[in-house]
Amino acid sequence: MTREISDSEAARHREKMVNRKSVQDAEVAEKTIEKGLLMVNTGPGKGKSTAAFGLALRMLGTGRRVGIVQFIKGAWSTGEQQALTIFGDRVEWRTMGEGFTWDTQDLKRDLAAATKAWDEAKMLMADETIGLLVLDELNIALRYDYLDLTEVVATLQSRRPDLHIIVTGRNAKPPLIEAADMVTEMTLVKHHFKAGVKAQSGIEY
Amino acid sequence: MTREISDSEAARHREKMVNRKSVQDAEVAEKTIEKGLLMVNTGPGKGKSTAAFGLALRMLGTGRRVGIVQFIKGAWSTGEQQALTIFGDRVEWRTMGEGFTWDTQDLKRDLAAATKAWDEAKMLMADETIGLLVLDELNIALRYDYLDLTEVVATLQSRRPDLHIIVTGRNAKPPLIEAADMVTEMTLVKHHFKAGVKAQSGIEY
Repeated sequence: MTREISDSEAARHREKMVNRKSVQDAEVAEKTIEKGLLMVNTGPGKGKSTAAFGLALRMLGTGRRVGIVQFIKGAWSTGEQQALTIFGDRVEWRTMGEGFTWDTQDLKRDLAAATKAWDEAKMLMADETIGLLVLDELNIALRYDYLDLTEVVATLQSRRPDLHIIVTGRNAKPPLIEAADMVTEMTLVKHHFKAGVKAQSGIEY
Repeated sequence: MTREISDSEAARHREKMVNRKSVQDAEVAEKTIEKGLLMVNTGPGKGKSTAAFGLALRMLGTGRRVGIVQFIKGAWSTGEQQALTIFGDRVEWRTMGEGFTWDTQDLKRDLAAATKAWDEAKMLMADETIGLLVLDELNIALRYDYLDLTEVVATLQSRRPDLHIIVTGRNAKPPLIEAADMVTEMTLVKHHFKAGVKAQSGIEY
């Protein structure tokens, strides 16, 4: 199955890649700013929280500590949470939400949980040993007006210069997108739930 | 800052959520199939590989083993790879690619690396102790015709029934999308590189 490559094809490829490498190097050289980023993973697709946990893993790989605040999904113990216990006190995990709003069915309790989660987030923002803070499903709490959008965005913008923050959840509010350094929209192209496949351990939770 | 909620607002919310919960429960009950999924993270945005590593973390949290084959990014040791060493032999990591094609500048070497990576992938597919296989940047190897698309798709489709596979990389080929159970497109809404921010440890690598 291995493709045959002629010497002339190999030579053309090399020339093209030498040029591409110069362009690439020049682009990298232009970028000199180092700063704590405000990142947002939003959109209706999968992978918003999962990518944030992947980023947490990467940060842990560099030896720094990570804070995670779950605004909504607290009702179910996730595989990620279980896996991250191996890192001990290098991960500060705060689960405040007691489940989706259709599980609690209690607006006052949802609002109190969101407020408590936001208080924890602010405490973790002040902890200088933390390199990355994951605010999981904060967008949902903002969407239902459980928190004051203006205060939240202003607080995130006034983070210390070396703190990276990633916010997840669908329907990110425009002022948060405006304030962010990086925004990724996860779009659903195809989903197995439509084909009757159920949520499975290790994949959905 | 805490929002005031009247008793009538709380009651309306409760009624709405009770209804929503019934709909939700009925939808969940309809989904009964369990199967190893073929998943694809594609698109120009961030988070394709990161979400796959997050999924690996989730699978590790359930106690199962994970295989990871890197088709392209092998040249740089990533934070994820460092972090995952904590899980010991529960993670089978195979790095075959020697870097981006503009770094190697050698088409024959790139092709040989991709072929070797695909051979490793097939070996890991046969390992029944593995619950999730991450084929990182396989889409890039397919895009450059380093591997035979028809063979790759057929092999992925004939995976054992309990093996989950996730393929990453931009420009996923249509036959792979067709064969997949779940496809997520990561779209770039905003990126800090445009503002001159450089790649930083713990975020980009």
